Amino acid sequence: MTFPAQSRVSRPGRQAEGAVAYQPIGTLRSPYADVAGMPIQPVGARGIQGHIEVAPEFAAGLKDLNGFSHVIVLYHLHRINGYELLVRPFLDTQDHGIFATRSPKRPNAIGLSVLELVGVELAGSEAAGTGGVVHLRNVDILDGTPVLDIKPYVPAFDVWEAGRIGWFAGKVDEAETCKADERFR
Amino acid sequence: MTFPAQSRVSRPGRQAEGAVAYQPIGTLRSPYADVAGMPIQPVGARGIQGHIEVAPEFAAGLKDLNGFSHVIVLYHLHRINGYELLVRPFLDTQDHGIFATRSPKRPNAIGLSVLELVGVELAGSEAAGTGGVVHLRNVDILDGTPVLDIKPYVPAFDVWEAGRIGWFAGKVDEAETCKADERFR
Repeated sequence: MTFPAQSRVSRPGRQAEGAVAYQPIGTLRSPYADVAGMPIQPVGARGIQGHIEVAPEFAAGLKDLNGFSHVIVLYHLHRINGYELLVRPFLDTQDHGIFATRSPKRPNAIGLSVLELVGVELAGSEAAGTGGVVHLRNVDILDGTPVLDIKPYVPAFDVWEAGRIGWFAGKVDEAETCKADERFR
Repeated sequence: MTFPAQSRVSRPGRQAEGAVAYQPIGTLRSPYADVAGMPIQPVGARGIQGHIEVAPEFAAGLKDLNGFSHVIVLYHLHRINGYELLVRPFLDTQDHGIFATRSPKRPNAIGLSVLELVGVELAGSEAAGTGGVVHLRNVDILDGTPVLDIKPYVPAFDVWEAGRIGWFAGKVDEAETCKADERFR
């Protein structure tokens, strides 16, 4: 599939807005130094511990986070280069549109994981220059990944009765054992 | 709360990585032209219809998305200026760390909504220059919002038994009726 340098739309109101830039709030630390062999979802990483080193200037934003059992972590998939609009995901033998998959090689390489929160270390007042630490479990994220946001997981907001899961039907259980290979390098 | 121009860390491995830039894949259209009076979560926007106009160069990525009943939409909260590390959210009378809230005035203003998928229009082959359209329900997002990513909602990955929801306990039901005011402008 090729991507022509398409003229940016003739219909007013249909084009996307300009680029947006984000500054990572911290860095994720995990046992996974390399993509190959990693779990592809938190369900395949049960018990795996990791943590987010939150930069000092953002650490005050962690107040009261320790009251939650789970968090949504958004992160930049920093080892992904470029994107594909049609991909063959780890769990299938057919190609699907990237937005119908959770594959990392997305136009905007933002990863999302719902992780168990083990504990939060707020920045020590005496330890000037050190940030906060968010300890997590079920971590399916590469070591060194820039973290963009942490949100509390609230089932009343985030859990919906999903009647249809498309091509994932019959395949989701495999995510517990499936490991990543190098296809999305 | 003030934000000193903090020296960027003395401990190696603790600092966040450099800035990341994303190009919106499309624009969200909704009945909400203004922040004030908007629902604060999809549970407060039941039945509200909206759609994403996906830019032509990304529309091929929508293939097979129509098999899903719900999607996760990530978007740039483009009307938010700056951030606060401690905020008083709509649902509480106490301040909390921004990462313990779903408030929009975040260091990286990325919004997340799990929305019902009504239908997908793929880009028409004859209609050169037009992109795809993703029709949604329960839309709690401002008209004109740049969309960063669409992911299929997969309960086996995204639903977790959350034992603790921190300060939200006893308050989540109010999200169904609570409307936004101008505090996060």
